[in-house]
Amino acid sequence: MTAEPRIDAGEEARDAAARDRSGWAGSARPAGVVQATSVDDVRRTLAWADETGTPVVTRGAGSGLAAAAVGVAGAVVLDVSGIDRILEIDPVEQLARVEPGVITASLDAAAAAHGLMYAPDPGSVGISTIGGNIATNAGGLRGAKYGVTRDHVLALDVVLADGSLVRVGRETLKGVTGYDLVGLFTGSEGTLGVVVGATLRLVPRPVRTATATAFLPSAAAAAGATAAIAGSGARPAVLEIIDGPTLEAIDALDGSALAARGGACLVVQTDGFGADEELALVAATLRSLGADVRVAATPEEAESLLAARRRALPALEARGRVLIEDIAVPRGRLAHAIERIHAIADEERVDVYVFGHAGDGNLHPIIVTPPAGPSDPMPAEAQAAADRIFALAIELGGTITAEHGVGRLKRAWAERELGPEVHALQTRIRALLDPRGILNPGSSV
Amino acid sequence: MTAEPRIDAGEEARDAAARDRSGWAGSARPAGVVQATSVDDVRRTLAWADETGTPVVTRGAGSGLAAAAVGVAGAVVLDVSGIDRILEIDPVEQLARVEPGVITASLDAAAAAHGLMYAPDPGSVGISTIGGNIATNAGGLRGAKYGVTRDHVLALDVVLADGSLVRVGRETLKGVTGYDLVGLFTGSEGTLGVVVGATLRLVPRPVRTATATAFLPSAAAAAGATAAIAGSGARPAVLEIIDGPTLEAIDALDGSALAARGGACLVVQTDGFGADEELALVAATLRSLGADVRVAATPEEAESLLAARRRALPALEARGRVLIEDIAVPRGRLAHAIERIHAIADEERVDVYVFGHAGDGNLHPIIVTPPAGPSDPMPAEAQAAADRIFALAIELGGTITAEHGVGRLKRAWAERELGPEVHALQTRIRALLDPRGILNPGSSV
Repeated sequence: MTAEPRIDAGEEARDAAARDRSGWAGSARPAGVVQATSVDDVRRTLAWADETGTPVVTRGAGSGLAAAAVGVAGAVVLDVSGIDRILEIDPVEQLARVEPGVITASLDAAAAAHGLMYAPDPGSVGISTIGGNIATNAGGLRGAKYGVTRDHVLALDVVLADGSLVRVGRETLKGVTGYDLVGLFTGSEGTLGVVVGATLRLVPRPVRTATATAFLPSAAAAAGATAAIAGSGARPAVLEIIDGPTLEAIDALDGSALAARGGACLVVQTDGFGADEELALVAATLRSLGADVRVAATPEEAESLLAARRRALPALEARGRVLIEDIAVPRGRLAHAIERIHAIADEERVDVYVFGHAGDGNLHPIIVTPPAGPSDPMPAEAQAAADRIFALAIELGGTITAEHGVGRLKRAWAERELGPEVHALQTRIRALLDPRGILNPGSSV
Repeated sequence: MTAEPRIDAGEEARDAAARDRSGWAGSARPAGVVQATSVDDVRRTLAWADETGTPVVTRGAGSGLAAAAVGVAGAVVLDVSGIDRILEIDPVEQLARVEPGVITASLDAAAAAHGLMYAPDPGSVGISTIGGNIATNAGGLRGAKYGVTRDHVLALDVVLADGSLVRVGRETLKGVTGYDLVGLFTGSEGTLGVVVGATLRLVPRPVRTATATAFLPSAAAAAGATAAIAGSGARPAVLEIIDGPTLEAIDALDGSALAARGGACLVVQTDGFGADEELALVAATLRSLGADVRVAATPEEAESLLAARRRALPALEARGRVLIEDIAVPRGRLAHAIERIHAIADEERVDVYVFGHAGDGNLHPIIVTPPAGPSDPMPAEAQAAADRIFALAIELGGTITAEHGVGRLKRAWAERELGPEVHALQTRIRALLDPRGILNPGSSV
């Protein structure tokens, strides 16, 4: 019999572990929190949980947006944010060996010291952990060009449900011995095992970047312009869209005058040796569509152009309680999707603001409702709008979650997107890896 | 009871289906061949096989190099090469919908008509099928920059072992609903299901390429130079290495004088808007190491520089029977690996030639033995050398197969690379998807 791990059952720890940044205010608080500081702590906790049938919710920084890593009644939260060393940056192999609690931006900064870059850049890069990024297969601004977290994970150390430790994947870029278990664990939201180590791919840091903003009359026009950019042969590293209501919110917060320049904005960044020529092509394409384009002349100006995009969420949080959605649709349907989302907002009488990663069809509709306490339930009209946005994403051939995860927040929708046969296959794989059902019950598929 | 499919039990069909291009001359021929021309054919064949417990080996063009798709005693070979339509090239979404029998180069040509590219480019691109590429997770020359097949598969239609049809994945670039089943099926060598359709990602065709060759005194020096290229910040699309004995074989076939220029050769191609500047950086890096560098001034000259690499395998096939190996090692160990491979050749008294994709550490040591008939067993010294090369790859932290697959050829080595725990996990996943064990028994894990 494995000894019970040291569980913090204090009010403060249980309160904190019951929430993430999704605004979810669900079930009762967890039984307690285990602050793991070593792989052995994780192994012992899972071995004990397996023997006692105790549910375990693995958690990092708590920055999740899908209530995937929130403690629930009867569960022990396994906090791995304290296992947080960057073990190695290998400039020859261009890879990093890290523990799960490393903050993503810290890894990128360590890579930068060697002229390298950790390419995935979720919006939460400054507060989220690599372990959480792996658990959700986090995306980010550079996804259309560089891919998502899964594309940068070479190998994982995983503690399985029974406490055993395995290493999956490899440290070479290519390799096809056996099935792709790295892909299986990445994005599995702590339901198949607990990631305690990762070997991540790094890429050369781009020699230069080039940045522009383009204002167009409407969000639909801006979305249409992204298709023209794709058709031009350019492949921007960043291609963000911000709708008019969001621009007004940024103006209200910052005293800027963005909304006066157009009904929607695109922020574009190219990178690499040909960044300037590639951006010139993008700018010419946008100007041919009548856009008001401003190309940054200096790095400082580029930063100020990108700042608008970074201010979008804080500007909306200043207006009330935010419910952050995360759909993706085929790029050719972006304009239609944005129009439909605004119509849904009107019909449900809620405020919905839209921005997102237009380059890969990923929109973040933000439903803003009046300020409320953390335990207050989400207003019914907000949930109704969210449900209609999910249904819209599926109707348009897209997904209910591009990069934030299913978690508890969207679980009722996962089967609807996947279909009953694939959903059943997924649950059988889950049961194979976790036969007692102790890993993050209630989350994911 | 499902009716028996139409099985061709003729000598010719059974002979042809018992071989691929690996030189494997294994067990007795299969019982017969089903030439599927529709998804329904595949479903009925699997439903019948499931009911009768008949082993099924799925096969495309037969261009495999690991004996993964060869018919074995008692098995029915399910030939899907006749399900071969390109259903759609969607230039807005930059994706293709294809059937499994499409020849990879045909897909790329169809994409090119829209200014797009199917990025994975296995050496077999002109003869292998997309279905086979997916089954082996095929790599290719552009792997270091563009990734492998798996990185370009968005969705798959898969017939499972019981004949049911499922669709996994999605048509958007991002999406995290459920586990990554696309990754699980890609590279599974027909052991988890039969791929009958795929949605593949396309990318903008590079506006230009720039190409160079560089001759260095030795293969070790050339391998060392690839690390310097990586350290320069360049990210070539192609970075190939050819050792001295292979250069001599090409000279013997073509009447060229490559070997006189140096003891080993690198072939480098950059692409995209900054291709020329990026290649200039690579060339300067190589010249600083004393390399004899030639940058192509015209597209025709670039083609002639690449031709040497393309002639490597034909040049060796002209010398005898080839056993094509496919290891990958960490890039920093390439030089050491090549030296060790040549030492193994000397000790085992076989001829081994080495070329490969240096950019991602993928070497193809080619063991050449005297000409022999297709049914003659591989000479013992060739197998001994191959086994020592596998052991070397594992010792150096690499893999026994970077892109060709495990198949029957390397099956004994898969567990050694994966370790018993991960191998057991893999076989449990296999059993979950194929409880009766009818899918490609004897291949993969």
